[in-house]
Amino acid sequence: MSRLVSGARSFSTTASSLFADATAASQSVRQPSSFQVFRDVPSLRGLRRQLYQKDRTVGFVPTMGALHEGHLSLIRQAARENTDIFVSIFVNPTQFGVTEDLSSYPRTWDTDVEKLEKLNEELERLGENSASAGRITAIFAPTSKVMYPSLPPSSEINGDGSFVTITPLSTKLEGASRPVFFRGVATVCMKLFNITTPDRVYFGQKDVQQTVVIKRMVEDFHVGTEVRIIETTREHDGLALSSRNVYLGDRRRTVGLTIYKALKAAKEVYLAGNNNRADILGAARNVTDRVLAEQQSLSPSERALYEVDYISLADPDTLDELEIVDPVKGAVLSTAFKMAPLEEPKPGEDCGLGDGKVPVRLIDNLILDPRA
Amino acid sequence: MSRLVSGARSFSTTASSLFADATAASQSVRQPSSFQVFRDVPSLRGLRRQLYQKDRTVGFVPTMGALHEGHLSLIRQAARENTDIFVSIFVNPTQFGVTEDLSSYPRTWDTDVEKLEKLNEELERLGENSASAGRITAIFAPTSKVMYPSLPPSSEINGDGSFVTITPLSTKLEGASRPVFFRGVATVCMKLFNITTPDRVYFGQKDVQQTVVIKRMVEDFHVGTEVRIIETTREHDGLALSSRNVYLGDRRRTVGLTIYKALKAAKEVYLAGNNNRADILGAARNVTDRVLAEQQSLSPSERALYEVDYISLADPDTLDELEIVDPVKGAVLSTAFKMAPLEEPKPGEDCGLGDGKVPVRLIDNLILDPRA
Repeated sequence: MSRLVSGARSFSTTASSLFADATAASQSVRQPSSFQVFRDVPSLRGLRRQLYQKDRTVGFVPTMGALHEGHLSLIRQAARENTDIFVSIFVNPTQFGVTEDLSSYPRTWDTDVEKLEKLNEELERLGENSASAGRITAIFAPTSKVMYPSLPPSSEINGDGSFVTITPLSTKLEGASRPVFFRGVATVCMKLFNITTPDRVYFGQKDVQQTVVIKRMVEDFHVGTEVRIIETTREHDGLALSSRNVYLGDRRRTVGLTIYKALKAAKEVYLAGNNNRADILGAARNVTDRVLAEQQSLSPSERALYEVDYISLADPDTLDELEIVDPVKGAVLSTAFKMAPLEEPKPGEDCGLGDGKVPVRLIDNLILDPRA
Repeated sequence: MSRLVSGARSFSTTASSLFADATAASQSVRQPSSFQVFRDVPSLRGLRRQLYQKDRTVGFVPTMGALHEGHLSLIRQAARENTDIFVSIFVNPTQFGVTEDLSSYPRTWDTDVEKLEKLNEELERLGENSASAGRITAIFAPTSKVMYPSLPPSSEINGDGSFVTITPLSTKLEGASRPVFFRGVATVCMKLFNITTPDRVYFGQKDVQQTVVIKRMVEDFHVGTEVRIIETTREHDGLALSSRNVYLGDRRRTVGLTIYKALKAAKEVYLAGNNNRADILGAARNVTDRVLAEQQSLSPSERALYEVDYISLADPDTLDELEIVDPVKGAVLSTAFKMAPLEEPKPGEDCGLGDGKVPVRLIDNLILDPRA
């Protein structure tokens, strides 16, 4: 049974409302034991007040569920720097465009809770050797109605609602093809930060534009929290972890690794002392062109095709494209690929969730650190 | 000399930066003695932390300076409900349209400080008879650069920046003729609330659409504060106090009172049991038409003309126009007048600040309370 503070509801009592909300649907209901699950704001605020009074610190990790090692690495870092960790699980409708994959976004409540419980056990073991290791104290899994109380959340660019907009940052890179995305992210993060009032918030470097937008939001709106950006977690071969990777399957996963190889080739040019856009991005483009040509020469039952959406070399604060990297400031090297559906799956092939029919957008980035 | 907490700068040391900032320009520098003046965020946060630790409560009154009895009544109410009062004085550029009166908005630092000091003396006398009366502890008078740290504040509807937008509320009534106004108000209030983290915030009923927008923002973004709306302060004859009244002069002031008389006539229809839009607004329209016809019959050296921008009967939460008032819910009756410049001032006439040449927009409203 979950521990309760005044005003908090245990997860079991709110299971029906979980099912009632399409954005948090789950297949079954797991009852966590080492942390509380909160479905509404007043009860979580009650816990937060208690933590204030005890001079404890809160690290906050916002997620859309479908937790993977990347999320867990954020929580581990939060545990090094705070006594208590709040994790939110909320598939935020306003950051999905009207044509995007909101309804198919993976929802995995049971395995998410299991992973968080195992992580808390790990943190507890660590804590025996170190007084400073924090624990996951609260999961915040609100309904859409809690997060968007007055109007239904709109995914239309001209839709009505209460929004935070951060321009021109939000219109660049990912924002060019996903016009409502960062409005949705900034809006839900402002709400979540106001609810959890964390000492520190944790975001992965993988979504680099998100980190830039959130840092800007916190600066411009004087949000009283520290933004901590944590290095991208990668598979042994370098593929950045993403909740969307489950849709890839073996073939597209192998070819999709090109996104990382292209970035690495570009970074090597910079590290060798070259600050020129043409040279740095040329190295990346060589890799993406070569691999695509190789794939195109294969038969439809063997190949995986992709489109390169963009390869960007940008200023780390404004995301303005750079002709020359200022080595005192460094830069952000980022790219997005669209992995096309498989044309012809082979019998018995692992095609991933959705049988290889789901197009998968992959993003990745590397930071070009200041060199001067 | 002002009292100092760690990190706070006394006002005198920041006088030069005050002059450097057009939005907070003043004629001379008065040094307050009963409260501190803060020009930046970290020092005010330091004070706020001390107050948290002492379990004191903060009531926040945001202003654009040019303080009048209406502002003082907000502070008096805040003093009844909090131990400490923070007042901000910041002429917020993003709520003025590009053609509006940002540069001519009255800036009256010295008299503002004087009024606040006198009010603190009054609150101190009151406090001798009642343990609960709070005091003004801090004035927050930031520069535009502090409030808009990353980009110059834009007044263009499509201008770049970090903004809070609340639609469709912000497009109605005042928003119809002032398209950036409520975006600017919501944006600066989100910043100010994040900086001051008040227990309660105080707004005057006079700017009724502002009160609806701020309540909606606090609800939708889960801002952890209570919004308190305080009744409009009026002159003995009923004219609502406004910082812009100084531009009226005697003649336009007398005629401008029509705004209040029209609203009163409409409210009487509702109070008599009539819920119909046509009847309620018809009563207001009768007054405005009659007075305008009277003025038009006078000579240019005697008359003051106006245009009625709108007379609205609206839902108190959505500001949607109503055909029939639901007596369980009540309604908001509101109106805006444009007082034209005087055509022909008379010798020795009091024409107000700007010699009667400044057009003055007046707004006022009455709440139709639930009757059922």
